[in-house]
Amino acid sequence: MTLGNDSCTLVMKIELITIGSELLSGVTLNTNAHYVGEQLGRFGLTLSRQIAIPDEHDVIISTLRESLARADWVIVSGGLGPTNDDITKNAIARLLDRPLVLHDDLLAQLRERYTRAARAVTASLDTQALLPQDAEAIPNPVGTAVGFYLKQGKATLVAVPGVPREMRPMISDYIAPRIAAEASVKTVTVTWSTTGFPESRLYEQLEPQISRHPEITVAFLPSTLGVRLRFLAGGDDARARLARWCDEIRPIVGEALYSEIDEGLPVVLRRMLLERHLTLALAESCTGGLTAKRMTDVPGSSAYVLAGFVTYSNEAKTDLLSVPEKLIAEHGAVSEEVAKAMSDGARRKTGADCAVSITGIAGPDGGTEEKPVGTVWIACAVKGSETVARKLHFLGSREMIRERAAQAALNLLRRQLLGLAE
Amino acid sequence: MTLGNDSCTLVMKIELITIGSELLSGVTLNTNAHYVGEQLGRFGLTLSRQIAIPDEHDVIISTLRESLARADWVIVSGGLGPTNDDITKNAIARLLDRPLVLHDDLLAQLRERYTRAARAVTASLDTQALLPQDAEAIPNPVGTAVGFYLKQGKATLVAVPGVPREMRPMISDYIAPRIAAEASVKTVTVTWSTTGFPESRLYEQLEPQISRHPEITVAFLPSTLGVRLRFLAGGDDARARLARWCDEIRPIVGEALYSEIDEGLPVVLRRMLLERHLTLALAESCTGGLTAKRMTDVPGSSAYVLAGFVTYSNEAKTDLLSVPEKLIAEHGAVSEEVAKAMSDGARRKTGADCAVSITGIAGPDGGTEEKPVGTVWIACAVKGSETVARKLHFLGSREMIRERAAQAALNLLRRQLLGLAE
Repeated sequence: MTLGNDSCTLVMKIELITIGSELLSGVTLNTNAHYVGEQLGRFGLTLSRQIAIPDEHDVIISTLRESLARADWVIVSGGLGPTNDDITKNAIARLLDRPLVLHDDLLAQLRERYTRAARAVTASLDTQALLPQDAEAIPNPVGTAVGFYLKQGKATLVAVPGVPREMRPMISDYIAPRIAAEASVKTVTVTWSTTGFPESRLYEQLEPQISRHPEITVAFLPSTLGVRLRFLAGGDDARARLARWCDEIRPIVGEALYSEIDEGLPVVLRRMLLERHLTLALAESCTGGLTAKRMTDVPGSSAYVLAGFVTYSNEAKTDLLSVPEKLIAEHGAVSEEVAKAMSDGARRKTGADCAVSITGIAGPDGGTEEKPVGTVWIACAVKGSETVARKLHFLGSREMIRERAAQAALNLLRRQLLGLAE
Repeated sequence: MTLGNDSCTLVMKIELITIGSELLSGVTLNTNAHYVGEQLGRFGLTLSRQIAIPDEHDVIISTLRESLARADWVIVSGGLGPTNDDITKNAIARLLDRPLVLHDDLLAQLRERYTRAARAVTASLDTQALLPQDAEAIPNPVGTAVGFYLKQGKATLVAVPGVPREMRPMISDYIAPRIAAEASVKTVTVTWSTTGFPESRLYEQLEPQISRHPEITVAFLPSTLGVRLRFLAGGDDARARLARWCDEIRPIVGEALYSEIDEGLPVVLRRMLLERHLTLALAESCTGGLTAKRMTDVPGSSAYVLAGFVTYSNEAKTDLLSVPEKLIAEHGAVSEEVAKAMSDGARRKTGADCAVSITGIAGPDGGTEEKPVGTVWIACAVKGSETVARKLHFLGSREMIRERAAQAALNLLRRQLLGLAE
């Protein structure tokens, strides 16, 4: 959902053509459209259309012709490089009737890169250094496939490799900023990360401010992990206006806000734990290691993550975390008492300063009338504070329940470290 | 990579139009094209084009018109249901000049479904039960958005909801089989899952058989977790020929093959462990909980997964798994000795029959000349057998190294249970 002055997104028509039969036969998930859309969104721009076609010369030519007639910018990804016979470059040269021209500087760069990587310099390097007449090369910091820009009438054509690792820096560092610059888009965006409040509640709370400030475009970006909020302002004083907007709504978004620079919760917790010189242990039942996996996705997490326990069985809870058998028998494994005992046990067993625990029913089976599928208890123990626990009820698939439970547990740790959890 | 007699995929032109501005602005990753492509692939069919457009009436109409002129089948996903103002249905009715007709049977079904879910029956149900003249409703087993078929000249138009959970069963159970039936495609496919061998090695080994059997289409579907192989045969005796093909190549693919029905390794291990009445514990360092997470993704895994340890620090390895400090000091945390001690310790601490362990350097930092980033030791301890270990070296990002290490460790357990690991 996007609200506010969205006019700049209407001005530019930007189409993305992704080339590759593997995108159409269910072999490869096409993530390029999502990435390009997100990067354009930083400048208040959006794709007007995305098309996936097989790597067939005639189809590429007809699709390019239609897009160039419709759009201001046409971005083509895929079909570059020797393994694809440079099918995209040849189609562009043919369609626009521009001979391929050898770029000596490009050839020298490619030679140098190959020499450094100790790979044999083959004849195909020469063809890689060929670009359609008047095309301008786009730097590729991570690979050898050469991308390029080309003005064609009122439209600009951009060709980039299809491999996400090579395509991404070219889009984020060169193409999205250049489209914004050429469109004289002077926008500033800020993306906040929130969790714990549903989109509808955030919307209701922010609605009066959004109505009062039509000069700020607000996008709600919901996912299993929470709702990201993207704010966009244009014009010369955009930065100052956006800063004032953020100041105005910060107290309204309140405790749900965990990052003002679009970070994930494990990255935020990394900073909080390092600043406070605190170590962490995890004790998971229904999430089965997902919470530890997310915390250790972050490079360098070994500096503060000491250990994790996946205590899936009752015996594991008793043996590994010293959860008293009696507690499980009296209250059940999914209970406030057991959640707290798991956190406390994880701290005691590892000597960690903090611990987070999760016990619940992820489904699809195992639910009861009293504790239906989606019932989850989370707890957090921090040195010097009383251990706190929360009962939650999540809807959705097993996967969604597990993802939401892990996020809620990490958020409870954040709140506890900030003194927000009572 | 697909090899063999691919003629049936060329006969039918099938286009997918995905409708939704959120697919173009980087809000939502479009997974529908991948899913539809994969389901069509079961019948040797593929998409000829996929187009994502915003939910704008005029754009939907012009795109539909172009696709209907080009293709035999046009599948439209998204823009159905009350929250989208049924924009797709209205655009189709307008373009094809077919009035919307109330389907009483559909309305009764929708009322019944809402009553069962104890939701208020609103006026919008009436509009949901409206379909363009001569359209045939497609059953939606999981939601209330109504999909439909419509013949238009030589082409068939299919409309389905955009939400993957609702779209998927409609595609897999009704639409893909119907397209195959109407195209008189009599094909049979089998998908095998392999891991441990790179695509190039599998290809080299199978190349003579593939050349000798042009009547079998072979697709190599590589991912971080391994290579899936899809075999397709057509004609009246397709099933028998495919069975003979599988018999011929089974010994060649050999130990890399872990499922002949396209299952994941955790699902295969579920069956193997349950059949043998064995329980499992996991001990992870660099994978940080990912292996436990994958094993517990499987519903009912609490029957055999007892516990997991994420022993990220050396102290955790010593304290929780009783890995001798001396071993770590002498050989380093990433070593055969420590990997074996972790597996043995996990078994001893939990009483599990089997344990799997992983210790390695996932990067991006922490590598040395002797043990560069990507160096991983995995081990597997099974009751009654000697504990085995393997050294691996993976390339790629931190995420890829972690995924490959977890998969290799689970594969070592599979091999050990089968008596394949020496």
